[in-house]
Amino acid sequence: MANITKKVSWSSRADELGAAGEGTPLLNGSEQSRAFRELSEGGNIFQIGRLSTVDLEEEVTSDEDSVKGRPKEIPHNEKLLSLKYESLDYDNIENQLFLEEERRMSHMSFRCLEISRWVICGLIGILTGLIACCIDIIVEKLAGFKYQVVKENIEKFTEVGGLSVSLLLWAVLNSAIVMLGALMVSFIEPVAAGSGIPQIKCYLNGVKVPRVVRLKTLMVKVFGVICSVVGGLAVGKEGPMIHSGSVVAAGVSQGRSTSLKKDFKIFEYFRRDTEKRDFVSAGAAAGVSAAFGAPVGGVLFSLEEGASFWNQMLTWRIFFASMISTFTLNFFLSIYHNNPGDLSNPGLINFGRFENDVRNLDILCFTGGLLGALFNYLNYWLTIFRIRYVHRPYLQVMEAMLVAAVTATVSFTMIYFSTDCQPLDPEHSEEYPLQLFCADGEYNSMATAFFNTPERSVRSLFHNQPGTYNPLTLGLFTLTYFFLACWTYGLAVSAGVFIPSLLIGAAWGRLCGILLATTTDNGSIWADPGKYALIGAAAQLGGIVRMTLSLTVIMVEATGNVTYGLPIMLVLMTAKIVGDYFVEGLYDVHIKLQSVPFLHWEAPATSHWLTAREVMSSPVTCLSRIEKVGTIVDILSNTSTNHNGFPVVVQVTGNEEPAKLCGLILRSQLIVLLKHKVFVELARSRLTQRKLLLKDFRDAYPRFPPIQSIHVSQDERECMMDLTEFMNATPYTVPQDTSLPRVFKLFRALGLRHLVVVDDENRVIGLVTRKDLARYHMGKHGLEELHLAQT
Amino acid sequence: MANITKKVSWSSRADELGAAGEGTPLLNGSEQSRAFRELSEGGNIFQIGRLSTVDLEEEVTSDEDSVKGRPKEIPHNEKLLSLKYESLDYDNIENQLFLEEERRMSHMSFRCLEISRWVICGLIGILTGLIACCIDIIVEKLAGFKYQVVKENIEKFTEVGGLSVSLLLWAVLNSAIVMLGALMVSFIEPVAAGSGIPQIKCYLNGVKVPRVVRLKTLMVKVFGVICSVVGGLAVGKEGPMIHSGSVVAAGVSQGRSTSLKKDFKIFEYFRRDTEKRDFVSAGAAAGVSAAFGAPVGGVLFSLEEGASFWNQMLTWRIFFASMISTFTLNFFLSIYHNNPGDLSNPGLINFGRFENDVRNLDILCFTGGLLGALFNYLNYWLTIFRIRYVHRPYLQVMEAMLVAAVTATVSFTMIYFSTDCQPLDPEHSEEYPLQLFCADGEYNSMATAFFNTPERSVRSLFHNQPGTYNPLTLGLFTLTYFFLACWTYGLAVSAGVFIPSLLIGAAWGRLCGILLATTTDNGSIWADPGKYALIGAAAQLGGIVRMTLSLTVIMVEATGNVTYGLPIMLVLMTAKIVGDYFVEGLYDVHIKLQSVPFLHWEAPATSHWLTAREVMSSPVTCLSRIEKVGTIVDILSNTSTNHNGFPVVVQVTGNEEPAKLCGLILRSQLIVLLKHKVFVELARSRLTQRKLLLKDFRDAYPRFPPIQSIHVSQDERECMMDLTEFMNATPYTVPQDTSLPRVFKLFRALGLRHLVVVDDENRVIGLVTRKDLARYHMGKHGLEELHLAQT
Repeated sequence: MANITKKVSWSSRADELGAAGEGTPLLNGSEQSRAFRELSEGGNIFQIGRLSTVDLEEEVTSDEDSVKGRPKEIPHNEKLLSLKYESLDYDNIENQLFLEEERRMSHMSFRCLEISRWVICGLIGILTGLIACCIDIIVEKLAGFKYQVVKENIEKFTEVGGLSVSLLLWAVLNSAIVMLGALMVSFIEPVAAGSGIPQIKCYLNGVKVPRVVRLKTLMVKVFGVICSVVGGLAVGKEGPMIHSGSVVAAGVSQGRSTSLKKDFKIFEYFRRDTEKRDFVSAGAAAGVSAAFGAPVGGVLFSLEEGASFWNQMLTWRIFFASMISTFTLNFFLSIYHNNPGDLSNPGLINFGRFENDVRNLDILCFTGGLLGALFNYLNYWLTIFRIRYVHRPYLQVMEAMLVAAVTATVSFTMIYFSTDCQPLDPEHSEEYPLQLFCADGEYNSMATAFFNTPERSVRSLFHNQPGTYNPLTLGLFTLTYFFLACWTYGLAVSAGVFIPSLLIGAAWGRLCGILLATTTDNGSIWADPGKYALIGAAAQLGGIVRMTLSLTVIMVEATGNVTYGLPIMLVLMTAKIVGDYFVEGLYDVHIKLQSVPFLHWEAPATSHWLTAREVMSSPVTCLSRIEKVGTIVDILSNTSTNHNGFPVVVQVTGNEEPAKLCGLILRSQLIVLLKHKVFVELARSRLTQRKLLLKDFRDAYPRFPPIQSIHVSQDERECMMDLTEFMNATPYTVPQDTSLPRVFKLFRALGLRHLVVVDDENRVIGLVTRKDLARYHMGKHGLEELHLAQT
Repeated sequence: MANITKKVSWSSRADELGAAGEGTPLLNGSEQSRAFRELSEGGNIFQIGRLSTVDLEEEVTSDEDSVKGRPKEIPHNEKLLSLKYESLDYDNIENQLFLEEERRMSHMSFRCLEISRWVICGLIGILTGLIACCIDIIVEKLAGFKYQVVKENIEKFTEVGGLSVSLLLWAVLNSAIVMLGALMVSFIEPVAAGSGIPQIKCYLNGVKVPRVVRLKTLMVKVFGVICSVVGGLAVGKEGPMIHSGSVVAAGVSQGRSTSLKKDFKIFEYFRRDTEKRDFVSAGAAAGVSAAFGAPVGGVLFSLEEGASFWNQMLTWRIFFASMISTFTLNFFLSIYHNNPGDLSNPGLINFGRFENDVRNLDILCFTGGLLGALFNYLNYWLTIFRIRYVHRPYLQVMEAMLVAAVTATVSFTMIYFSTDCQPLDPEHSEEYPLQLFCADGEYNSMATAFFNTPERSVRSLFHNQPGTYNPLTLGLFTLTYFFLACWTYGLAVSAGVFIPSLLIGAAWGRLCGILLATTTDNGSIWADPGKYALIGAAAQLGGIVRMTLSLTVIMVEATGNVTYGLPIMLVLMTAKIVGDYFVEGLYDVHIKLQSVPFLHWEAPATSHWLTAREVMSSPVTCLSRIEKVGTIVDILSNTSTNHNGFPVVVQVTGNEEPAKLCGLILRSQLIVLLKHKVFVELARSRLTQRKLLLKDFRDAYPRFPPIQSIHVSQDERECMMDLTEFMNATPYTVPQDTSLPRVFKLFRALGLRHLVVVDDENRVIGLVTRKDLARYHMGKHGLEELHLAQT
């Protein structure tokens, strides 16, 4: 076997960074970008077999000293993998403490735990629903107020002339509101920017994105999304709900808030990554459910994006959270709308009911994929531009204000020059009909698309009578809104891309419907352009985000008509295939641009000739079962290695061979041990070692202090530490000849963080971590390897 | 750690049976039941710690000699685990041959494979849809003919008197038709009995149910289900579609039919358990999709019942198969109904469109759970009775005929004595309105429920005008149909339980609706009893089968109205919680009664104190890397051990210690090696060993011959066999102190068949198989251990 495998000696490299990673969120610029600009221009596509990692790392580390406090830089070279992201540990740490606790627990205690899980899911649903409800009501009130003011102003100046004052008012209002949101996001919590879906995807995948599920993030997110939508940006309030739901879940399930320094002393059992992940899945599902009124879609979203191991009870709980979330939102909205008990309008966005069937969708499918790919491609370059030049907070705020002003100006211009007047229908009245230069009893059709919240515009495009829009209006609207939305996504504001995508798609979908109706004789079949709008919307959204099953279900649930399942699915499938031919989905593009070590579903197809031996990091820093405190402190303080997991070995004294594996211990556990001074002085008996409880580890979770904050005296350095009780005595291992796909499957299916590679005598010879696996990916020319870089 | 774990020394036992298992399908009786009757009466609830396995095995094996040819017996003691079920191997056998092939494959070849997977899924969808279409059309034609004949007869004799002749005609007709189906099932393919859902559940779980995915089974199933439905039994044709879809998938994906001795030489890459399982998932989904017009529900069904590792691409392919299946069925049915292109009625059963909302469901939820539990409980005892006394094929046929005759008689009696006459509505005309003793222009309401295929009855209950049924009719109908359906499930006929469950639930749901309407003042809210029928149907079905997310989605898709999602979900959840309090779901009851080693989602909660050391089978039969042919033949021929997987070890000569693990080889591989005489004669050089290709293994898959059919001469016995190339060199291993939940998780997540337990020097000390894990389950009094028995 060995003679078949091509042996490639990799340069040794650090595998996982320590707790220092705090402070480098996704989607944020920094000062260090110059170094990476140079790197990317050098064209670092690295075919396996060529060795250039060393040079690269030197180039990177030479600039490392210049890293300053907040906003660090993000490399825009997608052939890099950032070392700054830690991993989450979705495998239970089964050490003696844990096993003893589990063994002490009776059947009844497990029942109680199960019930608390359900209670937590219920709470997640209720809170997420309430947040959605608040956002909806506040946005509606504020936007209503804003549009009313602007409308009155326009009406006033239409008569007396001088509409430029109205334009100015509109632009200034929008910019001011957007500025508030952008200030919060840029200066207080940059991780709250965007829809948060890429971040949640990463979290569920097992990547620790700093501060992503904190209370502060939620606050900024909610405030930010209200500002963005009210500020008239081409954004939706739906995407951020998914992030909000996740934060709620992470908070509720831990029974405490570290930010508020409040510990309710409940749910302590759930204070570990495994359990928290499950609840965050439920939170994300509840978010989708609240946003689109799509509880099943929410569950599928969580599963598609996150979970790798499907568990019936877990799924059922997630579904429960989703249902409760929709129900809560519905219930309170129905009260707000003075119609309590009417639960027929679930979700923040509801497409309204469609009745009949759709046919002849061929063109729409492809267009969706193409336009989606174009959107992603443009946004990709824009994001790179932003990483390079717009990385300082004040620049980000200014860009956001600029976009808000431009959006208002463009909208105003379009409305101003539009001659598409439609008669006011007393039955289907518009929310804010602008008469402008139209005759009395008529309104400006372009204004229904621009002078409105995007949610309402989508519904108008779906449901307005045939003939409400003329083709030119729709064409111009599609064109301008496409570029506006593309420019907007990635700004330092909280905002979702779902609704803008739907709006673009609905516009050109309706346009296609109208054109088809005019070019064919049989007018009756093409009668309703609203259905084309729906299919166009699905195609465009599918082309941009590339979700599959979950998006189909979300669309069907939002439409409220199951018979649209087949066309929507066909459209989404085609859009995905066409789009994937050109560029990845928007979320994946952004994840890649952040150099996140993201693990996909399967190892690259042609990676069978790589084995664990070639993939693993080696040599590994190992600890003895009873180790000197000084050694441990030194190892943890070593910033050049900065490992997070250490195999524990039994070393035969005086033997130079690698030692036999007997366990695995994490940096975080060692930190807790050092903090509590669980030392054995050599002079005394072993009984003096302080008894540490599982509770001590849970109390420290998840914000373990850095090693630098722990003071260890010189005397203490001479003590010993017995790791037996705390290490995971049965870590998963693989032999060194295991093929990469096999290692990958084990790693992914079990949500591992460290996988120990052993030889045939059970001696440690290497360690496989997430970054070792994420490095390999399928490029255009076959298997490629990404560089690891300290960004 | 070791001093905490309670050490229990298990009696050694065989772990996995060899290829001899053919011929013992689920749901079939046998002559040997006497022994098990005795066992079960002895009350063998075995608490861990007590040792009685040895006595049990002796008792069992003492009777083993009396086993005769066909129908072997099934124990009805649910505290047993049968040894007769082999496992499937959902872990790739990564031996040198496999790796070499994978490494030779280019990126392009993987693309082609991916495309073939899609093509196969498309084919599965089309074929499943066609089968559903055929069944539907034939059943409709034949049932129409039957009802027409009986109706004319009844009308004739109503006038002249002597209706007993009509009753006789009806009963004889039904019995004759059912007899045909029962004959086929009992004598030709017993595994085709029932809905096939438990069998498919087992298959996807990793249990090899003999002959379950063969062409013959499909034939018998299709023929049988037509007979059952036309024969007027209280059954549906929907459940069997899931089994049919799976058979189609297993057949198509292998590119050959062993039954027809036809090999198309395509899709050879997919000839292994891992790939086949994925396609069978798609087939099951396509079946659900065709049956209920619920493509998303189908995907969720497959995932909920089968897959443990969720993969986005796989899910998407499964969804594709589902969609194609619905589409095909729809397309051909629309042509058949002279309405080509109208795709609005997907699925064999369609509930029709519901419009508004439902409230106040509390009572319905609980009733569903209770009645469902009662159904399962009765059916449980009935099944035990059947296993004891009705195990001979001719008895089974007679029972089926009896049930058919009784069903006809009861129906006739109910109709005869019913005085519920309703005016004939020309718009909502019944298919076969029976006037009987009603006035002209009226029809007998009881007859719409009984004198009809169950699918039509369900739709009538959902959609007929309020007032169409009077409460007494519904009450009587519920009562009689409940017992009829309960008696029918488990007969030796192909039939599903979905539709009868829906029918029972719809009847009492509508009854509740009517009663609520009469007892409350506000008549308008309770106006439509059809909605109560829908919710009742969901509750009853949920109470019986206990499916969760997938059933919700199936119901919603069949209803065609997403707003029913919330009430349906609440009802299903309550029904499951209430039902689970009393007894398991119907499918699980039947799986348990067959003593199948089924692995649930998680290890029992309180099993942390068990470790691999206590769970594993030991000692293990190991092979050397280069082994004597005679030794291998002897080991394989040894019926008392009958292992299926053998660790390959490197033995240090003259050393009595357990040897170091270097691989794992399967019985089936050894059989192929022996068959192809891949021997090395000691005298010659090693180069003479015949080169065996992966193709040879694939050609033999899945029907590997038994060892007895392979002749090995005395000379050949002296040769050696080099296993290096064929063994899986990197089997998954666990240390002996690993806790049971950890072992379980690894086993379940990766779909393993054998898990080697090693000590800290990598020496084999035990082997964990499916049966070792399935033995432990949560009983009423905590963790229980099931006995292993050679049934």
